[in-house]
Amino acid sequence: MKKYKRKIYLQDKPRKVAVEEILSHFNPKREVEWMNSHETLGRITAEPIFAINSMPHYHASAMDGIAVRAEDTYSAHEQNPIQLKRNEDFIYVDTGNAIPSPFNAVIMIENVDEISEDVVEIIEPTSPWAHIRPIGEDIVQEEMLFPQGHQIRPVDIGVLLASQTTKVKVWKKPLVTVIPTGNELVLPNEPAAAGKLIEFNGTVISNFIAEWGGNPQLHSIVRDNPEEIKVALLEAVATSDIVVINAGSSAGSKDYTVHLIGELGEVFTHGVATRPGKPVILGKIHETIVVGIPGYPVSAYLALEWFVRPLVCAYLGISEPKRQTLTVKLGRRIVSTMGAEDYVRMTIGRVNGEYVANPLTRAAGVTMSLVKADGMLIVPPDQLGYEQGEEAQVELLRPVEEIDTAIVFNGSHDLTIDILSSQLRAQSNNAKIISSHVGSMAGIMAIKKGEAHIAGIHLLDPETKEYNRSYVKRFLADQEVVLFPFLKRKQGWLLPKGNPMDIHGVVEIMEKGALYVNRQKGAGTRILFDLLLKENGIESEQINGYDREMFSHLSVAAEVKGSLKAVGLGIFPAARAMGLDFLPVSDEEYDLLMTKSFYDSEAGQQLIQIIRSDAFRARVEAIGGYAVVTGEPIFF
Amino acid sequence: MKKYKRKIYLQDKPRKVAVEEILSHFNPKREVEWMNSHETLGRITAEPIFAINSMPHYHASAMDGIAVRAEDTYSAHEQNPIQLKRNEDFIYVDTGNAIPSPFNAVIMIENVDEISEDVVEIIEPTSPWAHIRPIGEDIVQEEMLFPQGHQIRPVDIGVLLASQTTKVKVWKKPLVTVIPTGNELVLPNEPAAAGKLIEFNGTVISNFIAEWGGNPQLHSIVRDNPEEIKVALLEAVATSDIVVINAGSSAGSKDYTVHLIGELGEVFTHGVATRPGKPVILGKIHETIVVGIPGYPVSAYLALEWFVRPLVCAYLGISEPKRQTLTVKLGRRIVSTMGAEDYVRMTIGRVNGEYVANPLTRAAGVTMSLVKADGMLIVPPDQLGYEQGEEAQVELLRPVEEIDTAIVFNGSHDLTIDILSSQLRAQSNNAKIISSHVGSMAGIMAIKKGEAHIAGIHLLDPETKEYNRSYVKRFLADQEVVLFPFLKRKQGWLLPKGNPMDIHGVVEIMEKGALYVNRQKGAGTRILFDLLLKENGIESEQINGYDREMFSHLSVAAEVKGSLKAVGLGIFPAARAMGLDFLPVSDEEYDLLMTKSFYDSEAGQQLIQIIRSDAFRARVEAIGGYAVVTGEPIFF
Repeated sequence: MKKYKRKIYLQDKPRKVAVEEILSHFNPKREVEWMNSHETLGRITAEPIFAINSMPHYHASAMDGIAVRAEDTYSAHEQNPIQLKRNEDFIYVDTGNAIPSPFNAVIMIENVDEISEDVVEIIEPTSPWAHIRPIGEDIVQEEMLFPQGHQIRPVDIGVLLASQTTKVKVWKKPLVTVIPTGNELVLPNEPAAAGKLIEFNGTVISNFIAEWGGNPQLHSIVRDNPEEIKVALLEAVATSDIVVINAGSSAGSKDYTVHLIGELGEVFTHGVATRPGKPVILGKIHETIVVGIPGYPVSAYLALEWFVRPLVCAYLGISEPKRQTLTVKLGRRIVSTMGAEDYVRMTIGRVNGEYVANPLTRAAGVTMSLVKADGMLIVPPDQLGYEQGEEAQVELLRPVEEIDTAIVFNGSHDLTIDILSSQLRAQSNNAKIISSHVGSMAGIMAIKKGEAHIAGIHLLDPETKEYNRSYVKRFLADQEVVLFPFLKRKQGWLLPKGNPMDIHGVVEIMEKGALYVNRQKGAGTRILFDLLLKENGIESEQINGYDREMFSHLSVAAEVKGSLKAVGLGIFPAARAMGLDFLPVSDEEYDLLMTKSFYDSEAGQQLIQIIRSDAFRARVEAIGGYAVVTGEPIFF
Repeated sequence: MKKYKRKIYLQDKPRKVAVEEILSHFNPKREVEWMNSHETLGRITAEPIFAINSMPHYHASAMDGIAVRAEDTYSAHEQNPIQLKRNEDFIYVDTGNAIPSPFNAVIMIENVDEISEDVVEIIEPTSPWAHIRPIGEDIVQEEMLFPQGHQIRPVDIGVLLASQTTKVKVWKKPLVTVIPTGNELVLPNEPAAAGKLIEFNGTVISNFIAEWGGNPQLHSIVRDNPEEIKVALLEAVATSDIVVINAGSSAGSKDYTVHLIGELGEVFTHGVATRPGKPVILGKIHETIVVGIPGYPVSAYLALEWFVRPLVCAYLGISEPKRQTLTVKLGRRIVSTMGAEDYVRMTIGRVNGEYVANPLTRAAGVTMSLVKADGMLIVPPDQLGYEQGEEAQVELLRPVEEIDTAIVFNGSHDLTIDILSSQLRAQSNNAKIISSHVGSMAGIMAIKKGEAHIAGIHLLDPETKEYNRSYVKRFLADQEVVLFPFLKRKQGWLLPKGNPMDIHGVVEIMEKGALYVNRQKGAGTRILFDLLLKENGIESEQINGYDREMFSHLSVAAEVKGSLKAVGLGIFPAARAMGLDFLPVSDEEYDLLMTKSFYDSEAGQQLIQIIRSDAFRARVEAIGGYAVVTGEPIFF
């Protein structure tokens, strides 16, 4: 038997054990900055702060008026006015002026009758300390204003300045050097040819570190070469409190990082029991902690939060911020690996008063899944997952108010939904459409299960040749829903520019062996394609590429763009966006299915008003291939 | 009857009406900035953002290995190895490399046996698309990445760069000019003599505006002179989206702002139905909204949030952030004005598993009350307040986790509590002591009512001459508490430097008519003074100043410092802090009264460990006038 390259297996160390261990090895020289108080917003106090002076630091008039001895005024009355002599019995004071001894009260100027330049008359008594802000009313000299480890807010700058505490000691921001590695990386301002990717992980990591209160230094891109990586690491640990090195953290033949850290220092952890995020390296070179994080973006950002944020917070002497949690009902079953913590990105919608959460893709390479996620479901290592319909706690990635007001759109993808979303947003800062492109049938099911407010559907009934209605009747018989006529749109063949294979229909696709780029099961476009096959007596096995599934018109168009032998079925704007040829096949009805309660709601009516506006129609019809329909809603 | 100056009364316009009105008049020219994506953290998208390219933008290898035609591998098996020829049947690829046609799968290098330079052998089949990241797996070209009005987070920068969307349109930050006015103001770096105050409101306002996403411009200080204010206003409205003018917003004779805005433009509102924060001006000069906010800091910052934050958010097209709310039990009765919204700053402690909230001072001039507040109780205009023990919702000013872990200290003030707090904090980033200085008796009552974990007490029993124990027995008969012996400390006369009135005791205070600076009822120091009076047969009416009350040793010392005729009773460190003479009167026992559950808790034991440490003793005894006691706790 032949020898194949040996795999090095990663550890499966529990995340919390790995964090505690790295924290115990983290002994940075914490440095202090002596800053002007008015420039310290967001910084962390390095020691307790005591007031330099009182506020006010003298007995201060709280009004414009005259300062008097209260005793002199006790007998004043409307029938017994009292006259006071300037500089003897009173002085004029403005708000904020010091009250000199022996005066001990202020009378508002409105209550003073000025008889002459030097004589005033009053008709009401006052009492000691009236309208005077005594020394230290707000802040007393030597009072502790803040403990150490306090993050300075705008109002805190107020008390610092008010008490003449014009300089304070805050922690320096820990210097975190971020080293991106990879032969395929180019800078954001460089062209990204095929085989090249814009360096973005390092930039994202730097922004996270800045947000947490650290001082990120983004190193130039280092090639996948052990010598270059070694030089970069040694330079970085000499100047930094923490070093983050991105990618090369796994156990492949070109993953040098773990060997280099081991050679130059010590490796504590290689691999943690989390999914995603497993291939993490935690080590130390000289006096500096080095964290090697995975290349896939989702893994990278999670690992960063697990292992680098605690270090930044430890340096600053603050506790880590916690996310708000929310109890949700799970729209789908969640399967999890035994022995590992699973971090599942979730969308959350509030439909019919209930929070329903559904998992997004679990692929660690899909950054958009983090962008779209409303929350994170963390499945503990000893749990195999959750059943559909079960309740679970999720950590929120957005404020719950945003989830409360979001309109959850589901079903088939159409580009006009983005326009609708944008026009809605322009009208109201709170309104937002959250859309998932799952196909028409899945959209109907989402309405049925109470997971969406609206679904976009375009389902042709092969019997009646009618769109949508029979499907709604069949699948939503027991529910109050509204079918809102929305668009007529052209479906057609998406073809490489110039139509090199000369395709005009399904028969040619089959006969010429073109690579057909298909849509997922339940998508209206797939149902249309299947109908075309059936009408022409073609079996799906006869179509090259039938089994691979794309989830949106744009994905199909992007695939077609990549190959001269490809063809897809989709809408005109997708062809236009990718510079493809378009050959119309049918005019279809793309309608909006809504729950009755959403249709009746303020948000629902606002949406319909936009759809019926001239501005919306003009914008949509300008794209080409569309007509906005103005029919009456059908109530089921 | 004489004519006294006429008062102009302010309006009592409901806050929400005033906000809606000002928003309806706000029509700024919203400008767009075309920024590098990697510099947009925290900025707001001005239009929907579409992906410039797909990610990956080519079929990319997800592994280091060889790219093959999957079909060629189908028969591979351990008993039937297949040999492939380089450049014909396979090419070598690294992670991220493009997969050229006709290859359609990648085999990991670990699973490849390199026979010669040009021939490899495999023993396992692969399938189409294995280990390939297809075009658009993460992001599809032309996909909408973000709607307009989206605030850019670190991960969002990732998808922008990944999709080669290297520039985006974001809203310019609205320019908000902040004009501080007042003859008494000096700059933070200038000396603040008596009668002068460091300008801080304008600085705080600027920091708030920056935090909300605006671009604050802090104007130089303008004197209380209508002509100067007019020039400043006209200059500011010519360049700004919003102008905030601080102080002069009320209705006094020197409050010019409302007249100037009316003269130069239009005033919509002068006075809102809120306490504090009533004297607000909302107006418009030319095309710019002008907001006049009150001079008292608490009023100023609240009014800023009510009226300026909505404008900043409207400019940026985002909804205003909302505070988390918490249901609390009210420790005291809250009285509110009918017809006005009351904003009551509250401390919140979690004691015995219950959140108990107590009001801080309602004086609008006390900035520290905002610094110390954990939450804000908003009493609606149609409500007269709340009864003690009632439940109410408060808006949180700190994360609830901080409230959960805070140790609530109540009772008599002692400077060593700050040291304790600081040493605790140095040990643990989550630990914090929140202290209210209410006096010994109020501390006992706070323990009784379940509002505090610890109270500092020093109560001399006039009968037994013993400290503390008899009080605990009398007032907490039905509760499990622990009296923890803490300090012996010196109480004494606090005297102006050199003791100019030659005071050595209560008799001289009475006979020489010195100004006695007294403590509040229930304070241990007051009980001691009353005992001294009684022992010398002196009535409180014979003591000059007896009726005015100070709430801490430092406040007493600050008052004594202000007058050559003054004298107070207090602890040695207060005298030292203010540079006063100190004449010892008694050695008293200052002990810590704890609930049994706190004493038994981890936090309680941690605190006790610190008190018993040599470091703490050394630090405290170095102050002078203290001895740390190491007696055993007494259980009641």
